[in-house]
Amino acid sequence: MAKLTEIADAADPRLDDFRDLTTADRRPDRPGGRGLVIAEGVVVVRRLLSSAYPLRAVLGVPRKLDELRADLADFDVPAYATSARTMSDVVGFHLNRGVLAVADRAPTPSLADVVDGARVLAVLEGVNDHENLGAMFRNAAALGVDGVLLGAGCADPLYRRSVRVSMGHVLRVPFTSVPAWPDAVEELRRRGFHVAALTPRSDAIALRDVRRSGFDRIALLLGSEGHGLSQEALDAADSAVRIPMASGVDSLNVATAAAVAFYELTR
Amino acid sequence: MAKLTEIADAADPRLDDFRDLTTADRRPDRPGGRGLVIAEGVVVVRRLLSSAYPLRAVLGVPRKLDELRADLADFDVPAYATSARTMSDVVGFHLNRGVLAVADRAPTPSLADVVDGARVLAVLEGVNDHENLGAMFRNAAALGVDGVLLGAGCADPLYRRSVRVSMGHVLRVPFTSVPAWPDAVEELRRRGFHVAALTPRSDAIALRDVRRSGFDRIALLLGSEGHGLSQEALDAADSAVRIPMASGVDSLNVATAAAVAFYELTR
Repeated sequence: MAKLTEIADAADPRLDDFRDLTTADRRPDRPGGRGLVIAEGVVVVRRLLSSAYPLRAVLGVPRKLDELRADLADFDVPAYATSARTMSDVVGFHLNRGVLAVADRAPTPSLADVVDGARVLAVLEGVNDHENLGAMFRNAAALGVDGVLLGAGCADPLYRRSVRVSMGHVLRVPFTSVPAWPDAVEELRRRGFHVAALTPRSDAIALRDVRRSGFDRIALLLGSEGHGLSQEALDAADSAVRIPMASGVDSLNVATAAAVAFYELTR
Repeated sequence: MAKLTEIADAADPRLDDFRDLTTADRRPDRPGGRGLVIAEGVVVVRRLLSSAYPLRAVLGVPRKLDELRADLADFDVPAYATSARTMSDVVGFHLNRGVLAVADRAPTPSLADVVDGARVLAVLEGVNDHENLGAMFRNAAALGVDGVLLGAGCADPLYRRSVRVSMGHVLRVPFTSVPAWPDAVEELRRRGFHVAALTPRSDAIALRDVRRSGFDRIALLLGSEGHGLSQEALDAADSAVRIPMASGVDSLNVATAAAVAFYELTR
């Protein structure tokens, strides 16, 4: 069982893993800082506990720690109980979820680890918004996408806000970084994937026609909200696919478009 | 042409329509306040200009007003030019979109206005989050949903944050409020709609099987993020439908689930 310790002093150095989550420099959840993985709230903390990330500590108000008692039974780490006020003083903002867990990062899986056995993959380019990135992982998990590959310009999926918006699914859906196009795309093609690039262009193939083609394995290239996919990505792909949309309407939010595409391709 | 007037003083009463957008009371964009419709940014302002809402005034930095010059040609309303700093002082926060337009509300359409000629409708219950509500309108517009009916507990779609997140599509997609269940559902049924309730329940019918049933008209009941649809809504509907999801995953965000359902049902 995690060892329960009450801490009243926000300056206690045992809480340093959780400190100053909003300051720009050396934030513990940034690779430029200490690069820790931070989970907020009971649901996401549970996902962290059942993930491969090595747990370091938990910090929460007594009621929330109590909710997690059974989940923490097998962990030999400190569980710090404190007041909501002290928690705010430590992290730097009011945290209405009342509990945090912190873990070390784990080694990034290889491409083979993510790709072997996968049927549908999401391949992201330039998804630099942490919340969109987190939402994509949540959607990938819900709709049965087997893994996520991160191309150039993507945000850090393990940054706290991504973890939170993903509902902790960045801790479950396998992901890794891939080299620049076209190398990564050619590697996927060698492994039997049809590589489809999602674009709002009207001359692209409707998504369901790609699905009906019956490819065994599909990798879907997705770009950023503002700029979409680069020409290099479109050139490297086997096909350009689109979600049929009403005329005169901006494209969907990138995570929403991803959800629609995941739904169609994973059926 | 809108009459261009330079204003340097943030206290100028001609700017009262735009004042204190973040204060809780008598906010101009709240029904409890003056109940105005406020559009932010060039794209959304353009949607307001082409909507049925009677334009009152525009406020922006000169560069943004210049972008809108052709759009404003046919409007006989004041266009106030000012600095970014003065705009911040008026609205109460830094507005990086640089332009606002304000309009009066228009009379709410009747149920017949929204429903006649519609093939797919979204019927919302308890969607009380302005951003989720706005996102649903954006998704409805993109994916060809013909109208939105607001049941009990829904937020105000014309509140500024809904307008912004919808990318202005709340100003285009017809909507109206409907009475409590089962009356509204029975009225839709009389008008030839199959009324399907979206739920994560595993005994519900898969969405695509409902679509394959070939109903001429479908009204999709959607509940709130946290609680889903009420039992009254589920009881009133003709069928319960679900998006097939991976086990152990929370349901999708409500606006994302709506997008997937709209995609399937509008094809």
